[in-house]
Amino acid sequence: MSGKPIVPLIQYEDASEAVRAVYDDILAFRKVDWINNFWKVLAHDPALLKRTWESVREVMAPGALDPLTKELIYIAVSATNGCEYCTYSHTAAARSKGMSEAQLMELLAVVGMANETNRLANGLRPPVDVQFEPRD
Amino acid sequence: MSGKPIVPLIQYEDASEAVRAVYDDILAFRKVDWINNFWKVLAHDPALLKRTWESVREVMAPGALDPLTKELIYIAVSATNGCEYCTYSHTAAARSKGMSEAQLMELLAVVGMANETNRLANGLRPPVDVQFEPRD
Amino acid sequence: MSGKPIVPLIQYEDASEAVRAVYDDILAFRKVDWINNFWKVLAHDPALLKRTWESVREVMAPGALDPLTKELIYIAVSATNGCEYCTYSHTAAARSKGMSEAQLMELLAVVGMANETNRLANGLRPPVDVQFEPRD
Amino acid sequence: MSGKPIVPLIQYEDASEAVRAVYDDILAFRKVDWINNFWKVLAHDPALLKRTWESVREVMAPGALDPLTKELIYIAVSATNGCEYCTYSHTAAARSKGMSEAQLMELLAVVGMANETNRLANGLRPPVDVQFEPRD
Amino acid sequence: MSGKPIVPLIQYEDASEAVRAVYDDILAFRKVDWINNFWKVLAHDPALLKRTWESVREVMAPGALDPLTKELIYIAVSATNGCEYCTYSHTAAARSKGMSEAQLMELLAVVGMANETNRLANGLRPPVDVQFEPRD
Amino acid sequence: MSGKPIVPLIQYEDASEAVRAVYDDILAFRKVDWINNFWKVLAHDPALLKRTWESVREVMAPGALDPLTKELIYIAVSATNGCEYCTYSHTAAARSKGMSEAQLMELLAVVGMANETNRLANGLRPPVDVQFEPRD
Repeated sequence: MSGKPIVPLIQYEDASEAVRAVYDDILAFRKVDWINNFWKVLAHDPALLKRTWESVREVMAPGALDPLTKELIYIAVSATNGCEYCTYSHTAAARSKGMSEAQLMELLAVVGMANETNRLANGLRPPVDVQFEPRD
Repeated sequence: MSGKPIVPLIQYEDASEAVRAVYDDILAFRKVDWINNFWKVLAHDPALLKRTWESVREVMAPGALDPLTKELIYIAVSATNGCEYCTYSHTAAARSKGMSEAQLMELLAVVGMANETNRLANGLRPPVDVQFEPRD
Repeated sequence: MSGKPIVPLIQYEDASEAVRAVYDDILAFRKVDWINNFWKVLAHDPALLKRTWESVREVMAPGALDPLTKELIYIAVSATNGCEYCTYSHTAAARSKGMSEAQLMELLAVVGMANETNRLANGLRPPVDVQFEPRD
Repeated sequence: MSGKPIVPLIQYEDASEAVRAVYDDILAFRKVDWINNFWKVLAHDPALLKRTWESVREVMAPGALDPLTKELIYIAVSATNGCEYCTYSHTAAARSKGMSEAQLMELLAVVGMANETNRLANGLRPPVDVQFEPRD
Repeated sequence: MSGKPIVPLIQYEDASEAVRAVYDDILAFRKVDWINNFWKVLAHDPALLKRTWESVREVMAPGALDPLTKELIYIAVSATNGCEYCTYSHTAAARSKGMSEAQLMELLAVVGMANETNRLANGLRPPVDVQFEPRD
Repeated sequence: MSGKPIVPLIQYEDASEAVRAVYDDILAFRKVDWINNFWKVLAHDPALLKRTWESVREVMAPGALDPLTKELIYIAVSATNGCEYCTYSHTAAARSKGMSEAQLMELLAVVGMANETNRLANGLRPPVDVQFEPRD
């Protein structure tokens, strides 16, 4: 088990101006005083860093769904894919937005059940019921 | 593309007593007058049918998370896994519980973003920040 | 790499009565004197703990398939999904049920091959042969 | 939904000598009188066709695990990955090797359960118990 | 099998101004006279449509990797995930950028092999060799 | 986190003749003086070791695609599947074949985007456009 990132972390003090601009936006937008490691590896490609941060900021903003619900969905996907970093970071983010332990446990119960029934459906291949067909 | 289920659908009128008991519970609990195909293939194993139905009923019940949020999570997992049947059936279920089109689109935007950043993290392997470590 | 569980492990001596009842059933049913960490995290949701344990106990019982074959299938799924905890725990379980090293290696050879040909089929999309269609 | 293969099926009568040699080996080895579509798309790369067929023939041969168990494992992986072609073809293969409907249903029950608990472990991250560590 | 999209296709003539602006950019940038269905479903969320299109346009542009290599990578991911729509659309895109049949077949051979060895590694858990550790 | 391999590493000096023959071929073919751990766990099944090595050697050879492009594809699959060992080993291999950091970052940008749009397509189910259908 390596534990080392594939590319070195780019710290704030070593960052280019383009990277620092994104870091500053993260710090200001999230009202935090540190940059998490995900951004520090993306920083090797400033365009990727900027695009990803701006997309995340836009996608996770309050809208038809509230920010906590969006974090729950993020955890659901990350647990399904088995992404370790994302599971830790988005569980922490959800907690900071008020997720209770009971909510986390129920979330994972649904995630587990969905992963189970997805495979029962994949293995048995029931046809989609006409009642489930989207309306035009 | 076959389209045929791997095992024949077991219709209500052909069902054993054990299967019919579960079908009756589904009809009563959901207040519907038809059984969807997922249960009609599971019915080839009455114990599996009963256990799965009872688990779904329990897991999807209102609790720390409301039923619509649970359906959104179900869709998130099903889209991530690419399960066609589950995507159609749980989108229909979420709509019947009030999901708006704007909510569906935002949900999928989060699902897409999470699937993207999961792979950026998998490919670049940033270490989990100490700030994200769960408290004891 | 954190290594810390997302929720603290609930030890036997700190467990609620509901949790302890499940722990006791695990100890008695498996004839072991320790509870593995998977159950100690599920214990934060006693209903989830109970349902999952009872389902596992029922699903893994001898039936049309013997318990060792079921453990092999569990490993096949866990290796396909890349679940680290499940790979270690179910390999250990399979070994305790008599899995030889030769069986493990053949199992993984099939798992590898299936994952390969699944993607060749996904990428080239051959139509399902009529000869493979399930009979009515 | 297209349904068309990504590359045209190469029929026996149109096959090159290298492809026909593999087709002949499939027909002889399996004692069948038709080639299934999976091989007819692989045939666009005769080296890939030959290597894949020879690997499958070797991996699925009786050894420490019997051929039916190997087919069950193939189905477990294919259902987990959601590969439609592979699910139909390997379910048919397993049936021709004697898989009963009860065995299929129990297999899928284990596959479903494993997919569920994989995600519970992924989402809650229990540490691997020392008791599960492989011996040196 | 439904075949119906989850949300109706939004045709050019029925599109809002915001959607039409993106459609126009797609038509101009790609020098084509039709919009493919992927964008017509995303169009239900104009912000998602715009963000996704602009990201795709930026990511797939020539850079350190040429556009054909990027399409090959897109196919590799889509075949691994089993996404039908993406497999058809990106294979067509790669062909229009000059991908030969021999290249497609070799690509899928690598994809298959990688999916196989990923699972051999997942199932046997060899430690990462120090020689593979990234340099600081 | 165990970190121990599921089966012990088989070192060169302890290897059987059959295993040593493969090890020797790896050393000679790759012009290196060490065997990486992946092969040392596969060595518990000499036939699997030999078949896998010969397939990898054949698949990764220069052909219609150059070896670096093939390594990029390998990384794309490994990051998509979240295989830690394969991500470290194939990133190292790609670097030794000349992959620049800019190429790695663009590769992962495409991988991330493909994983995102795969799920948007899976969740919204647009029909495959007739223009994307393969020609006969």
